[in-house]
Amino acid sequence: MTGKELADENTIYVGNKPPMSYVLAVVTQFNSGSDEVVIKARGRAISRAVDTAEITKNRFVTNAKIKEIKIGTESITNEEGRNSNVSSIEISLTLTTKK
Amino acid sequence: MTGKELADENTIYVGNKPPMSYVLAVVTQFNSGSDEVVIKARGRAISRAVDTAEITKNRFVTNAKIKEIKIGTESITNEEGRNSNVSSIEISLTLTTKK
Repeated sequence: MTGKELADENTIYVGNKPPMSYVLAVVTQFNSGSDEVVIKARGRAISRAVDTAEITKNRFVTNAKIKEIKIGTESITNEEGRNSNVSSIEISLTLTTKK
Repeated sequence: MTGKELADENTIYVGNKPPMSYVLAVVTQFNSGSDEVVIKARGRAISRAVDTAEITKNRFVTNAKIKEIKIGTESITNEEGRNSNVSSIEISLTLTTKK
């Protein structure tokens, strides 16, 4: 139950860059001593967040495992002032053993 | 631990159609008596699978909750015979109370 206490620096927001940009950010975060990193995304970037978690876990930080995956819906206001709903995801990766 | 026993008819594969097509399929599956439906997708359709789960749960089957979310990597062979990896997601929705 450490989710609430996690500092923002442990959170990587995935957007429209190539997945490897975010993988690098996650790996850097683990290497700086974090034992938990949360990957967040909304809308179409959700697929890329899953790619980021999988590539990190399978290729770069092989002692990381998926602790929790949450999905949700966020209401956003677009430029014309209209509300629309967008899906979101949060993937928490933790280390199984200290390096 | 009922995942393995679930019949394929309880699984909805999300592809490139509009999300509402898949929402309809999930709702139909619940209405036909299933108390668990698994939504699966790969690659870019992952975002749409999350949309499908969220729309179903928030608007149509409000007594459904997310039981489990799994992500993984699948190896696929493209037309030229090359292997490439693609991320996948499985979202299990279950009913909290019988209707």
